[in-house]
Amino acid sequence: MATDGLLSKLALEAKASEIREILKAIKTNDLISFGGGMPDPKLFPVEEIRQIVNDVLRECPDVALQYETTEGYEKLRKELLRFMNSEGMCISSPDEIMLTTGSQQALDLFGRAFIDPGDTIILEEPTYLTALMAFRPYWPRLLLAPMDSEGLDTDALRRILEGRRSRSAPASESNSKIKFIYTIPTCQNPSGLTMTEARRKELVDLAHEYGFLIMEDDPYSYLSDSKTPPAIKALDNDRVIYTSTFSKILAPGLRLGWIAAPEMLTSKFATLKQALDLCTNTLSQHIAYQFMARGYLGSYIAKLKPAYKNKREAMLNALSENMPGGAEWTRPTGGMFIWVTLPEVYDTQKMLPEALANGVAYVPGGSFHPSGRGKNTMRLNYTYPTMEQISEGTRRLGNTIRAHLA
Amino acid sequence: MATDGLLSKLALEAKASEIREILKAIKTNDLISFGGGMPDPKLFPVEEIRQIVNDVLRECPDVALQYETTEGYEKLRKELLRFMNSEGMCISSPDEIMLTTGSQQALDLFGRAFIDPGDTIILEEPTYLTALMAFRPYWPRLLLAPMDSEGLDTDALRRILEGRRSRSAPASESNSKIKFIYTIPTCQNPSGLTMTEARRKELVDLAHEYGFLIMEDDPYSYLSDSKTPPAIKALDNDRVIYTSTFSKILAPGLRLGWIAAPEMLTSKFATLKQALDLCTNTLSQHIAYQFMARGYLGSYIAKLKPAYKNKREAMLNALSENMPGGAEWTRPTGGMFIWVTLPEVYDTQKMLPEALANGVAYVPGGSFHPSGRGKNTMRLNYTYPTMEQISEGTRRLGNTIRAHLA
Repeated sequence: MATDGLLSKLALEAKASEIREILKAIKTNDLISFGGGMPDPKLFPVEEIRQIVNDVLRECPDVALQYETTEGYEKLRKELLRFMNSEGMCISSPDEIMLTTGSQQALDLFGRAFIDPGDTIILEEPTYLTALMAFRPYWPRLLLAPMDSEGLDTDALRRILEGRRSRSAPASESNSKIKFIYTIPTCQNPSGLTMTEARRKELVDLAHEYGFLIMEDDPYSYLSDSKTPPAIKALDNDRVIYTSTFSKILAPGLRLGWIAAPEMLTSKFATLKQALDLCTNTLSQHIAYQFMARGYLGSYIAKLKPAYKNKREAMLNALSENMPGGAEWTRPTGGMFIWVTLPEVYDTQKMLPEALANGVAYVPGGSFHPSGRGKNTMRLNYTYPTMEQISEGTRRLGNTIRAHLA
Repeated sequence: MATDGLLSKLALEAKASEIREILKAIKTNDLISFGGGMPDPKLFPVEEIRQIVNDVLRECPDVALQYETTEGYEKLRKELLRFMNSEGMCISSPDEIMLTTGSQQALDLFGRAFIDPGDTIILEEPTYLTALMAFRPYWPRLLLAPMDSEGLDTDALRRILEGRRSRSAPASESNSKIKFIYTIPTCQNPSGLTMTEARRKELVDLAHEYGFLIMEDDPYSYLSDSKTPPAIKALDNDRVIYTSTFSKILAPGLRLGWIAAPEMLTSKFATLKQALDLCTNTLSQHIAYQFMARGYLGSYIAKLKPAYKNKREAMLNALSENMPGGAEWTRPTGGMFIWVTLPEVYDTQKMLPEALANGVAYVPGGSFHPSGRGKNTMRLNYTYPTMEQISEGTRRLGNTIRAHLA
């Protein structure tokens, strides 16, 4: 092979994620997938998008099909400013907002802009698998913060940070600068947990005390069907870098996310993004702008909330009916996932082939645990499958679990 | 500022490109821009795209607005296989093709997949500025190969490679593994030059002899209005990694490019791309697929060629009329750029503010020279400005040049 000895260390170590492999399996089989974090395609606002594209291509095709600035379409950044501020944040200029190719690109930019090899970043455990994949190319050390029913456990994090300062920590580790914590505070992926307001405040205090930034990833708060605590960005505009996405509130195929950060940083992110893909999809930006400017976003969110709540309740009920004794699961107020913990004798990774053979897919929880823990956990998505699939898939899952140890 | 001491080395060193700053200037002034590499927006196939989006949103909105696999829409990959093979290449499976978020993302993936810090890559000089920006985050050493009227000077490159092997080279340099050469062999950006077939064959020989890969960036060959030499990919399918883009043959706002490489590598690229943006814009992929499957691409290219030839000839004529004695320029067969070399006393970087004050923008050639050479050169784009702007802008440019030394 011509490439022998030529691949980078990063390429040699890179492994395809299990979610991606499961997504590929969906294309080729008829199994019921609780795997990916996909929205319900039957709820896409197709007619609104069709109208908008027709209007945009009639009114301004010369700009809607051309390159945009790397920062993104200014009218959309102004709409996003209004949208975020209506949620209690305090963005003062559209120049504090930059469009990204999905919020996944924001995560890559966070790594790129802040991590030098050997720097420390703090992750929740469990954490979003593909965030870890985004940060790894920059060779960080990981400091893992546990979670409980109130979200990220800030008391435990404080103890860890204090311990790191003490003389018991190895010199190399305690010298490593902590650059940021990455958190999904609301309806977390994968756990479904939401961090309380008191803990958010405590986290901001810790960030000030220890001099690190807070990367707040917030794809789900807009869809929560009960009141959520304020965004961490609303508690400290300067130290919090915020990202969200249109993937859950419009359509993921448009690959559109955004970052909100102090202007000095959005300008830095734009310079770095230029090397990645020059600019974000222009047509998508025009679609999103019109979707907001015409007031469609508010009514679309109002339609999504009860639909997803129904699905979530259906899955919670199905779990109650089908899970064996000793299994536990979270009861989120929104997001896309329910997190199941089986008794410790289970290994959901080993059980996955049996589940697939039984026609149901999930993501083994170990994938979300950089420490190697969580072998007895799994993440279930309830937004993509139909109500019938939720019922039948949960039944298949229950059967798989009961049969596994037998 | 909360970020003091937290930015990465990469972020601290990153500088906004001049092209980007010029693109921003276009948005705020009425100057005539020969700066960016933008297609003529009046030629966008708006009606075809409008029809396609309406059909796609009627027939398959559930997939066209959803996440795609990271590799990309399979039907589009099959169309691309046929398209490339009709140009003399020999791709045997759609799995050798992966969609990317513009070909800019392909360049980032090349760096990511092959460069470890301190590895050597070979660049043409001058080279595409934003390719250099894409590779820099991976900390390569640069080996620069000169160009002449026949494109990349392979004789000179051979001498450089032989010299590197000899004992005169510093140990650290000769130990550094050469991973790849990056080349735009046809209607190069920025020079407009095309590498001869003999030189392409010689380059393949050198790659085998010295064990490196060839990254062939080919945005322009499909628009050349005279017959071009075969793609390097057609000369050696295994050692050449190929990228091209829909930005010049459909619309840049769709942010759609592709990579063709041995399947083992497209699979590796897909794993790495997942961390960057999960997948390429799905709606764009459906638009491009239908644009090809309906036969629009061929007729659109047939329409673009004479239109751009007219503009190029208009600019060449205007240069003859307006450039002072001692100025020279290339006469490309396609692409988007003419490369002007002024007498050595000129510094086009220093002259740029005067040009902008006179209402015309270009990109100073020094930006495309990693060695620091080329201060007396500039890149002119002829595809974006109108015929009137080409005439008037070249006149303004001539006046600027004549006034500069006075």
